[in-house]
Order: sequence, then structure tokens, then C-alpha cells
Amino acid sequence: MDVFALPATRALIRAALDEDIASGDVTSMLTVPPRLRGRAEIRAKEPICVAGTPIVQRVVEAAGVDVEVEERVADGDHISAGDIVARLAGNARTLLAIERVTLNFLQHLSGIATQTADFVAAVAGCGCRIVDTRKTLPGLRNLEKYAVRIGGGFNHRQRLDDGILIKDNHITAAGGITAAVLAAQSGAPHGLKVEVECTTMSEVTEAINVGAEIILLDNMTIEEVGRAVQRIGGRAVVEASGGVTLSSVRAIAETGVDLISVGALTHSAPAVDLSMTLYLE
Amino acid sequence: MDVFALPATRALIRAALDEDIASGDVTSMLTVPPRLRGRAEIRAKEPICVAGTPIVQRVVEAAGVDVEVEERVADGDHISAGDIVARLAGNARTLLAIERVTLNFLQHLSGIATQTADFVAAVAGCGCRIVDTRKTLPGLRNLEKYAVRIGGGFNHRQRLDDGILIKDNHITAAGGITAAVLAAQSGAPHGLKVEVECTTMSEVTEAINVGAEIILLDNMTIEEVGRAVQRIGGRAVVEASGGVTLSSVRAIAETGVDLISVGALTHSAPAVDLSMTLYLE
Amino acid sequence: MDVFALPATRALIRAALDEDIASGDVTSMLTVPPRLRGRAEIRAKEPICVAGTPIVQRVVEAAGVDVEVEERVADGDHISAGDIVARLAGNARTLLAIERVTLNFLQHLSGIATQTADFVAAVAGCGCRIVDTRKTLPGLRNLEKYAVRIGGGFNHRQRLDDGILIKDNHITAAGGITAAVLAAQSGAPHGLKVEVECTTMSEVTEAINVGAEIILLDNMTIEEVGRAVQRIGGRAVVEASGGVTLSSVRAIAETGVDLISVGALTHSAPAVDLSMTLYLE
Amino acid sequence: MDVFALPATRALIRAALDEDIASGDVTSMLTVPPRLRGRAEIRAKEPICVAGTPIVQRVVEAAGVDVEVEERVADGDHISAGDIVARLAGNARTLLAIERVTLNFLQHLSGIATQTADFVAAVAGCGCRIVDTRKTLPGLRNLEKYAVRIGGGFNHRQRLDDGILIKDNHITAAGGITAAVLAAQSGAPHGLKVEVECTTMSEVTEAINVGAEIILLDNMTIEEVGRAVQRIGGRAVVEASGGVTLSSVRAIAETGVDLISVGALTHSAPAVDLSMTLYLE
Amino acid sequence: MDVFALPATRALIRAALDEDIASGDVTSMLTVPPRLRGRAEIRAKEPICVAGTPIVQRVVEAAGVDVEVEERVADGDHISAGDIVARLAGNARTLLAIERVTLNFLQHLSGIATQTADFVAAVAGCGCRIVDTRKTLPGLRNLEKYAVRIGGGFNHRQRLDDGILIKDNHITAAGGITAAVLAAQSGAPHGLKVEVECTTMSEVTEAINVGAEIILLDNMTIEEVGRAVQRIGGRAVVEASGGVTLSSVRAIAETGVDLISVGALTHSAPAVDLSMTLYLE
Amino acid sequence: MDVFALPATRALIRAALDEDIASGDVTSMLTVPPRLRGRAEIRAKEPICVAGTPIVQRVVEAAGVDVEVEERVADGDHISAGDIVARLAGNARTLLAIERVTLNFLQHLSGIATQTADFVAAVAGCGCRIVDTRKTLPGLRNLEKYAVRIGGGFNHRQRLDDGILIKDNHITAAGGITAAVLAAQSGAPHGLKVEVECTTMSEVTEAINVGAEIILLDNMTIEEVGRAVQRIGGRAVVEASGGVTLSSVRAIAETGVDLISVGALTHSAPAVDLSMTLYLE
Repeated sequence: MDVFALPATRALIRAALDEDIASGDVTSMLTVPPRLRGRAEIRAKEPICVAGTPIVQRVVEAAGVDVEVEERVADGDHISAGDIVARLAGNARTLLAIERVTLNFLQHLSGIATQTADFVAAVAGCGCRIVDTRKTLPGLRNLEKYAVRIGGGFNHRQRLDDGILIKDNHITAAGGITAAVLAAQSGAPHGLKVEVECTTMSEVTEAINVGAEIILLDNMTIEEVGRAVQRIGGRAVVEASGGVTLSSVRAIAETGVDLISVGALTHSAPAVDLSMTLYLE
Repeated sequence: MDVFALPATRALIRAALDEDIASGDVTSMLTVPPRLRGRAEIRAKEPICVAGTPIVQRVVEAAGVDVEVEERVADGDHISAGDIVARLAGNARTLLAIERVTLNFLQHLSGIATQTADFVAAVAGCGCRIVDTRKTLPGLRNLEKYAVRIGGGFNHRQRLDDGILIKDNHITAAGGITAAVLAAQSGAPHGLKVEVECTTMSEVTEAINVGAEIILLDNMTIEEVGRAVQRIGGRAVVEASGGVTLSSVRAIAETGVDLISVGALTHSAPAVDLSMTLYLE
Repeated sequence: MDVFALPATRALIRAALDEDIASGDVTSMLTVPPRLRGRAEIRAKEPICVAGTPIVQRVVEAAGVDVEVEERVADGDHISAGDIVARLAGNARTLLAIERVTLNFLQHLSGIATQTADFVAAVAGCGCRIVDTRKTLPGLRNLEKYAVRIGGGFNHRQRLDDGILIKDNHITAAGGITAAVLAAQSGAPHGLKVEVECTTMSEVTEAINVGAEIILLDNMTIEEVGRAVQRIGGRAVVEASGGVTLSSVRAIAETGVDLISVGALTHSAPAVDLSMTLYLE
Repeated sequence: MDVFALPATRALIRAALDEDIASGDVTSMLTVPPRLRGRAEIRAKEPICVAGTPIVQRVVEAAGVDVEVEERVADGDHISAGDIVARLAGNARTLLAIERVTLNFLQHLSGIATQTADFVAAVAGCGCRIVDTRKTLPGLRNLEKYAVRIGGGFNHRQRLDDGILIKDNHITAAGGITAAVLAAQSGAPHGLKVEVECTTMSEVTEAINVGAEIILLDNMTIEEVGRAVQRIGGRAVVEASGGVTLSSVRAIAETGVDLISVGALTHSAPAVDLSMTLYLE
Repeated sequence: MDVFALPATRALIRAALDEDIASGDVTSMLTVPPRLRGRAEIRAKEPICVAGTPIVQRVVEAAGVDVEVEERVADGDHISAGDIVARLAGNARTLLAIERVTLNFLQHLSGIATQTADFVAAVAGCGCRIVDTRKTLPGLRNLEKYAVRIGGGFNHRQRLDDGILIKDNHITAAGGITAAVLAAQSGAPHGLKVEVECTTMSEVTEAINVGAEIILLDNMTIEEVGRAVQRIGGRAVVEASGGVTLSSVRAIAETGVDLISVGALTHSAPAVDLSMTLYLE
Repeated sequence: MDVFALPATRALIRAALDEDIASGDVTSMLTVPPRLRGRAEIRAKEPICVAGTPIVQRVVEAAGVDVEVEERVADGDHISAGDIVARLAGNARTLLAIERVTLNFLQHLSGIATQTADFVAAVAGCGCRIVDTRKTLPGLRNLEKYAVRIGGGFNHRQRLDDGILIKDNHITAAGGITAAVLAAQSGAPHGLKVEVECTTMSEVTEAINVGAEIILLDNMTIEEVGRAVQRIGGRAVVEASGGVTLSSVRAIAETGVDLISVGALTHSAPAVDLSMTLYLE
């Protein structure tokens, strides 16, 4: 059961249809004969890593319409400009009515996958994962984190309740790294590891000493990250974060960190260019 | 009654909270004392055009929590790195629980407003509007189009039912521009103008002759746009679209078009950088 | 994709089923054998203009039940007392469970279409449109406005965001007709025309002079309407409204107005008489 | 806890606001200054029996806006043309945004109450109740049945699960009135009486003999109703139904029936005329 | 149309899936090949009265997945440890994803039916009904009351609006039993009987005298119940309630009461033991 | 921000109110004067560990009514028969309308907390946690898992996406324990530990050898559990499960396991006995 079958996803698709179509497509009702049938092709207009193809079928279902969908690529495929993503067949008005919602999903999710794939390619051979963050667009988290996986990235926490990440504010509130980590260890659900954010070398030392299982190095310079990795020496998983870009990510990866988290994967991925063309029968 | 008061917006905020918090913030429950109170400041970390400040209060309401919110800027303000967007005061766990959802909204909407403001600035003095499209992210249309207005842009259609825009597929289905425009004119709701997309000069001529009120020049070169504007000679409102960027938009505006529509305003706006800092009491 | 396929419509149908059936049909459970099958016929008991036939199939889908539906007429058909609207076949308890909800939709929508058709017939040959208003019943707007179209009428604004209609309160707030129309023209989305309500001849003159594209003559006598049409002289589309009845509508139409809006089309349409008869197998 | 506080009612109000306002009131945004404040009066324009006044406050709450509401009449009051139903005070744009939704509710509910009161008045002194049916408009049942009560009427079943009403189809399915009533009696929830529909005098006799507690005389002539009342002789509660109008209801009541059910109370009540006037401060 | 087809039930199933699966089944995604197919059997691990089998198919539909379901027993069947309730076939990941939600429904509903059947068996031959109460778990009322019926019990009121049950608080508020019953009788919907709770013999006498149709004997000793039954002498239906257990129910029944209501049927029914085993193909 | 403030919890409360009240409390409307005010006390009728007190205030908010709530105990308090849980003050009809829903929540959640506290007490001093499972009632998971924590227990996974638990079916599908654990380790989100279910000693050995971080001993005898704990020797966290009861739990705990998971905590907790008494003013 994939992310597209989730009840929440299907509710989102219905909301997107409502938001775009409302009481109906005035233009098509005025200019397209009611019983005209057609085929439509969704094509990439640039090279992309595809994510979201199953959404096409789910849009059709959510719309409660009679349209045949043929997926021509699979999520994760790297395709070229001009390649066909999917073919649709049905009533012409219907095809036009669902076009924009379908493309909006595909352009965004493929945008995330494509950008993620670029980051993953940039660290190839370094043995480090590219991971996302909770900096996702409201309502779209499940789909965006799916697109990150499709692009070859990994997911950080899905939500506040499925991971323990002790940040600066928690450390202050708890009275220091040692106190915070100990509190977390003693009460944590048994399946969750304890991760703690550090910004200085002495914090890293403290975190290691108290037994943190994952250390997040936040906004350190590459040199600092390198030294922190040395200091940790394999006693904890190491994550780096903070303003990571495609041009800086390789150098960070080469320090030996296990994970690099990149907020831009989801909050700033540009849409890829896709279009739908209708062929009348 | 602004966009933040709309029932649909408040439902979206609830969905975003659910999506992020689910059964609760494990880390805070383990490390932050339950009755600790604090103040929080949301600050810009780069120069931005702010959009979405009323969302802070609406997140608090949607979460059903007791947090005081003080807005320090108004939507549309251009602020600098370090400026405070809003101050919050309340239970520390609560402040941390709503942090990410609040920032995710603000970063996205301010990102759109900031980028829109850049486009608007680029065409200053040309007497032409920057307008958005229906290429918005699923579930976010109302808010995104609001952010475009805040950035100084204008909105194209909100939905398929509040504007008539005859595109290539409609033209084919109707049997040509003349037939399509006539059909639209005879049946259109009386408050809507008829807009038609043209890609060649002969189509422009045909559209003018049949009385189209708005002509969309799609994917034409700047030279073609210029000639089309001449040909139309004020007999219709003229919109240009297609791959418009910050570097190309000024030249397009100088052709004399009335409107330039830019899909990237909403589908590819990078998030701006904001952060929330907690001060314990 | 018609109005019956809209997610909002399907949600309404589910709500209507919930509202009527709740935990189940006690009477049928007690008196009808569980596996008994039957056929049902929905018939008109008076002459009507049918609207809403596709709802039958949608009710079946929303109910998640196994019932075959055969539509015997098409929306817009004028049928006689005794004519069959639709045939259903399935489990007898199921047919009885969905009867009332189905009829409630059909009776109301056909009631609107039938009454609209009467108004349209009354102005036949006058070249003027009968249009609806926003005076619709809560939750039913899309369907009611659809029924108006089926009856031969046209739709005014669907909502507050897809049309510009400057009324008395706006005029006062803006400081007069000229100020209000100018403000609207300068900021209006480019696809929307500016309509302004006038109640006196001097207001009509002012509206024309400032370039209003549509003039709504509200609660004027037929004589005043006639003079206003003369004064406007084709420089704007003219709409008349205010207490229009079947007996007054023809005289108004003969003044030469382009549109007559009638709130009663949706807020006071009497239901038509339909019934469902079950035939056991 | 009244019907206006029910979660379902508040959901309906939110849906009605969404349906009318969508992304915002374009006209007011263009013509009304953003911070202008005003007072508004909702007045009757004809004599009515008021129903729905608490909806005004609930619309304000559902809209999440800051408007003061002063109810000037109570539901059930009979008021004259010109009387004030409610006063509102707040931001002018906000008042205009919620005007139509508020009036749509009030006009419909007061329409039902007013018409019901007419029926009740028509049978004054006869000792018989006017009752509604399940022929309500989709989504509005609770409110409509409330309005019937306000008008002096009584409610029949709310839903299929809170009353036992054996109709022709059930009788056929069960194999006759006796079989149907016996089946219902033996399995009915202990708090529900068994009602059975009869269309002939022999059916009435059969129903009485088997111990039906309520007998519905459907579509009988007034003479037949009178004879049935005699035949029943107080051994069952007697309800009459079928095409009852204001002009026929008195004669039916005078036959001595206990209840007269009228579908038109809810499915065909014309809206009453109300208006809202804004006074700027 | 059964309880499983109700829109509210289907919404509950979607909520349960969301609650359990959220963004996806991490374990299965990591360990189960994506295209592996399997069959699954749901078996009872103890003797039970089955309730809820149709939920399996409804879970599949709500999940929007492609799984074949074969029901092997019918609701109400008494089966033994090891018996198969249902067989499923489909993608292995999918079968695992829906396992827990499906079993959670079945275990709870069969638990209620099984316990109800025990109560019903305990009063066999006494001619008295076992009935439930409104003490149900939030969100589950329709299903729980269905399970009671499957177990051979009967339903008391579904909700506050489909039955009249005058309790101590109402009696105090109304000024005594006589006043309360008279008020209820004069205003009650005509299809509802009036039930009144009594805790002493003098209250019983008062209730009988004023014509209460049902008398609820609350928290009386068995001896008191016996005397009350004598006192009532068939003039009203008699219900007993209050701390009824499997060991006490028979003695109560033998007093001659018509109904015994048991809150524990729904609020304290232990789950029955069911398991799902997967067979890979 | 506690579990009662979650949007999903508030939606559940609204659903529970709808489910119980529907169109209104008929009995109270007939017998309780509309403006009568009262105070109400919710009391325990047996010794309990309280869970859910904040729900009282949330029910009031969800109902949109004006009732003052005074919590007299805190969640987690162990109180005696007769102790007051909360006091309410407001309109008498309103207090009666929300009584049942409020008590249904409190009785169930306190039932879970009380039973959990019994299990926790039974293993006192053993250094082992009592944990829940995903065997929760549909729609109630968040609240039920909260009640487990209140009773002194700990939570296992909330959902399928926040923990890795490899069970028999996964092992078969992956081709053995070693293959399954390795696959999970290589792809697991970095914050999640890998848990694997074992039913034999050789599986335990295999799981330890491949580096499983948590081992679930399912349905083993106490002797087997003891030997497995020895074998594991601290190299993994050890959880025991399978038919655990209050009488068997101590012996299991004394084997030295770290966790004992008990499905009955949530799926079979009997409701505690609470009542609300109304005092009229």
C-alpha cells in the first residue's frame, strides 16, 4: 500500500480538485462539445527524475470520472525532455478538467525527486545519506517525503512523535546536554534512538560522553564538521545540517558524516516542466 | 475577512498540525518541564517581503492552545535580516510544538511574496502587471495567490469556473479561434471577459477580429510579442506568458503588454529563511 | 466532468445519507426480508423540467451499495405526469434506504429547473437572459445553479470572488459611484467586468460616464427601467432585479434589458412531485 | 444545547461560508477601505415568524471574525415589515462578507416557520398537530425540522432509524399489513410505536385489528378520512397526509385526525424577504 | 443497506487506517519485496460469536487497494477456535498494512457479540430482552449497537433524539414524576413512547398512575424488582438496569421484567482473540 | 500541547457529540425548563486511576456551549469511590446533553489507566516496563496510548511508520531473520532501532548474531523467556509478549526482560464506574 493509497492523500487530491474546479470548467463547457472524446499525453519538457505517476490514476478516481490511464514510466526513472509520463483517454472536457491538478502534483513531486537526485549524485561514493527535514509544505508532507525517497534520499523524522531530536531550545530547558540526553534516554519509547544537536566541539564531547546515539552538527564549518567526525570516532551516527547547497554538499560528505540533511529538498524545490497535450478522436 | 479567516484555511492549518504533531512532541515531553513558560521570537534571517503573519494567530487558534501572539510587522513589509516578525508567549512545550508548522507557512508565503516583489520591481514603470497562474501547490492556492498580491502581483483566475481562457486544446475542439470565441461570448456568464491564447500572428489577428477581450501571447519571442502588441493596437488586453524569468521579464514588459503571467511565482518560489528562538522565563 | 462528479457534491450526498439513514432503516429491517430483490421506478406525478438525474447513480455510489441505475430521461427534458425518470434494481432494503435522499435531491433540483423554465418561457423572444443570484440554500449552491442552467437560465456570480458587483453599501463606503467604479477598474482581476447597482437615473448616468461595463437596475419600476435602458443606449450590459415574478417578468424583458435576475429561482422554488414505486421480484 | 450548537450545524455553516466567499470578497476588497467599521441591521421586509436568529452569532464564530451581534427578536416571534431581527457591528468588509450566508439561512428558516405557523393557525382549535416529513432539503434536515417546531408544528421521524413507519412497499414485502405489523411489533426497539400507512378502509380495519399504534391515512379523500377516524374510534393515533394545502387543511383537521403531515412545510417553503443595511461609522 | 455501508462507518474506517498506517508501513517496505503476493487467513483463536465480517471488504475499499476478500462465516455464527473467518489475497505488503486495523474492528465487535450472546443465553426462556445503553465508546456507537443485535440483544435508544427516557435529573427539574411524564406525553413526537426511571416503589406507583408506557427500575434489588413487576401488572413495559452481571442476570430475568439493560455489553466487552496468518505465493 | 488539544482529538469529540445528540435531547427539551441552571458533579463510584479529565473542558468547547468546568483531580491521581473528578456549572439542558459523551470518554480512559496501573504495580521493582500495542479501538489510539502512559505504562509504536518490528510474516517474506534484519538495518530511518520477533531459541541466537537491537520473545513459556534473556546477555533490549495477564506478569518480569507488552491494556480494559449528578440552582 503506497503513499498514494493513503486516505489522507486521497482527501488531499479531492481538496485540490475542489480548489481548482469548484463548480465546473466554464471554458470547456462553452467551447468543447459535451461528448467529444480524446487522448492526452503528459510529457516532460526537460530531463527529470519522475515522482508521482500513480497520482494520475488517483486523481481520476478522486474525480469520480471515467478516464483510462496508462503509466509510461515508473517513479524513480530518469527521463529526457519529450518522454511521455502517462497517457490518458476519455471525455475531452473531463481530461481538461483534471489536467492542472494532475500536473501540479507531478511537477512538484518530480521537482523534489529531481533535486534530491542531484544531491545524491553529488555525494556518490561518500557513503553518506542525503536526508530531508520537517520543512515541508503544509498538507504535503507524506508526498514530499516520498519524493525524496524516490530521488534516492532518506527520510528524517516524519513527525514530532516518531523521533527524538534534542535541539538548542530543549537543551536550555533541560539544563544542558547531559541532562537532556539522560532524560530522553530514560523515557524514550524503546524503538527510538536519541539524537542531539551540537554546535560546538565541547557540546559534541559532552553528547558522546552521555551516550547520545546520533549527533547533529548544526551550522558548523566544514573544518569543524571534520574535527567533530574525528572526535566522535564512530561512537555515534553523525548528521550535518545548515545551509547545505549543491556546491557545498560534496565537501561536507567527504568529512565522513553519515547523514546530510537539506531543508531545501522539500521547501525550495523548483517545479519541473511538464505539459499535457490533448488529441481529439 | 481575510484569507486566513476562511474555513478552508483553518482546515488546512489543522491538517498541517496533525501532520506534524500527530500524537505529540516526544522530544519536548521528555526534556522540557511541563509547566515551563517562555517567549519566542520569529526572525527573518535574510531580507524578505513578509507574507503570512496572521497565520501565527490562526495556528494558535487551530491548535486550541493558550499562546499570546504579537505581530511585529505587517504583510507586505520589506524587512531586513534580523528583524522580528512576531513574538509569542506561552507554555514552552506548546511553543515548540507549533514552531515548525508556523514557520513552514511563513517561509513559503514570504518566499512567494518576496519573489513576486522582485518581478514587480523588475517591471517598474512599464505599466504592466505581474500575474500568477493556476500552477499552485495542491491545497495551497488561496494562500499562495494571497502572497502574490502581497508581493505586488495580481491574480489570474482562481479556478476553472471564474474565468474564460480558451487554450489550444479548446480551439481544436471548437474548430478554430473564431468558433471558440463566438461560442464563449454567446454563453459566458455576463461578468466574465473572454480570453484566448494565441501563438501566431495570424491567430492574433483572428482573435481580434472576432472580438476577444483579452489575448494571451504564449511562448512567443519578445519580437513577436512586440509585433502582436502593435497589431492588437489597444483593441484587447494583452497578456504574455511562457518561461518568463527575472532576467527576461523587463524586456517583455517593455513591449507594452498589459500583463505578464509567471507560473514560477507559485510553483517554484524558494522558501525564505526564518527561525524561531525560545527564551525561557 | 459535471457538477455531480465534484468532490463537494459527493460529500453533500454522503451527508444527506447520514442525515436520513443514521444507524439504519428500522422499518425495513423489521418488515423486509434481508435478501429480497426488487426493481424501483421513479416517476413524475406532474409535468416537470427534469434536473438532477445523474444524482441517482451518485447516491448509489455514495451509499456504497450494489444497485443498478437506468436513467430514462436526460436533464433538461420536459416530461409529463407518469413519465419514468429512472429505474433502479437491487436489494429491496437498499432501494428503500436510498429512496428519500434520492427523491429529495430530484424534487428540489427539478423544482428549480421547472420554475426557471417557466421564467425563460415567459421572456421568449425578448433576447434577455434569466439569471440567478447568490440567494441559494446553504450547501446547495453548485447544484442549484446547475438546475438553473438546465432550466434555460444563466448564472450570475457563483461566489464573492468571481464577480465584481458594486452595491449600495460599497458605494457609500467608497464615497460614491465614480470612486467605487474607478477603484474596482484599477484593481480588478483582468478577466472580470465591473458591474454597479443603480437605483436612480442620475446614478445610471454617473455609472455610464465612469465606464461601468454592467449596470444593475435594482427595484426600479418598469417605466424607470425602460428609461434607463434608453439612457444607457448600449454602452453597458443592463440587468434588472427586485421582486421579479412570473407575471411581471415579461414586461421587464420588453424594456430591452439584457438580464433579469430572480432570487426566487433558487430560494423559493417549490419541489416538484415525484415518487418511487418498488416492484418485488 | 440548541440545534445551532450542534457540530453538524457548525460544519454546515462553514461549508456555506466556503461556498459563498471562497478566496475572498473581491468587490469589497476593491471598494471598501480595509479598516472601515460599520453597523448593520437585518430587517424583515414583510410580516414573518422568525426562525434562525441564533445562526447570526454562529456564522460570526464559524467565520472566525470579530463581529458583535445583538439579537433583537427571539425565534418564534411574529414580527412586522420593518422590524429589526439583529444588529451587527464590526469591520465593514467583514460585515459584507457574511451578509449573504447569514440572510440565506434566516430567509429559509423563517420561511419554513412562517408557513408552518400559517398551517397551525388554520387548524386552530381542532386539537390536531401539524407535522413535517422527511422531505427536507439535503443537509438541512435538523435546521428545517427546528424551524417547523418554531412555527408551532411538530416533528415526524428525524431519520429512518428513530421511527417505524410501514408503507405500501413494506406491506408488499412483508406479505400484508398483518404480517408487517406483527413483525415490527415483535422486533421494534421498545421505545418506538408502530405506525402503518393505509389507503383503504379495509386496510384500516386490518391495521386496527393487529394492534397498530398509529395509522397513517394516505391520499384519502376528506370523506374517507372522516370514516376512517370513526372506524378507528380512538384505538390508534391517526395521521392524515397527501397533498395537503392551506386551503384543504382545516377540513381535514375537522375530521378529528390527530396529526396532519405536510411535506411542503420543508420542501416548498418560499423564503421570506429580509435585508441587511450597513451604516458606516 | 447495512451498518458497514453507512458513510459514517466508512469515514471511521478511513480514520482508523490513517491512525495506524500514517505515511506507510516502514517494516514491510524494508523487508517485503514490493511485488510479492500472498494469501491471508483470519482465524479465531477461541470460540466466539462473530460480528463484523463485512468490515474486511470495507477496509479494503477504504484503503483503495486491490485485495480479494472471501468471507467464510456470517455475522452471528458461533464458531470454534481455529475456524477461518475470512480469506484475503493480494499484494503481501498491502495485506500486512491492513491487518491490524481489520483485526481491531473484528476483535472488538466480535467481543461485544460474544458477550451479548452469553447474556442472552443466560436468560433463555425468560421472555426478556437484553438491551444495550448509550455507554458506548466514542465514534463506535453504530457498530457497537449492531454487534449487540448480532449477539441476540436489542438496542435501547441510539441517541438522545430517538427516545424519551426521563431520569432522576429530569424528574427533579420538572418537579416530580407526574409533571415530567405529563410534559413528555403532551409534547413527545407521536412515534415515541415515554419511559421513566424509578428507584422506589412509590415512584413506580406514581409512574403507572400518570400513564408512563415504559418503567425503568434502576439499581433496585431483585426483590424490589419482583415487587415492582407485580405492582405494574402489565400496565407498562418494565426494564431493569444497574450493575447487571452474567451471574445476576438470570435472577433478574426471572422476576418477569421485559428488558434488562447492560452497559457492560458495550463499554467493557473484552476483545476476542483473532489472528491473521500470511501465506506467500 | 497535550493529546486533548490535537485537532484529531477535537474532531473525535465532535463526532461523539454528533453521534449521541444528533438533532437534540428530546427528553430534556420536554421536561427541563429552557433557562434552568445547575451544577453537576462527576464522581468515581469505585477506586480508580484517573485519565482524561481535560476532556471535560474539550467537550464543552467542541459543543460550543457555555459551561464552566472545574477539574478537581489531575490525570494519574489514584482516587477513591465518592471522590469528585470535576464540577460543571451551566444551563441544565446543556449539562444533561453533554453528560453521556463526557462520561464515555472518562470511563474508558480511566479504565485503561487503572488497569495499566495494576500491571505496573504487579512488576514493581523488577525494572521492566509495561508497554501497549497497536491493538487499540478504531479512532481512539492517541487517547488510549495516552491513558497507558498515565497509568505508568510506556508506549510501543504509535503507528506502522514510527517503528520497525519484524514479525514472522516479514521473516518469511525476506527469507529468514538474518536477511530481514540486514535489509531493515540498511534502509531504516536513522532514528529507528530494529526490533525482531523470535519464537525459538535458535531464532534468538540468529537475531543477536545479526545485530538486532530489540528482540521480541513472542508466546514463549516463562522458562524459555528466562533462557532467552540469558542467551541475549544484554546485547539487545528484550521484550516479552503473548497472553500476558495480571497473574502471569510478575513471573515474566522476574526473568529480567526489559519490556512486557500487553494488548489487553487497550483492547479489553473494562470501563470504570463514574456518574454525574445534577444540582439545580
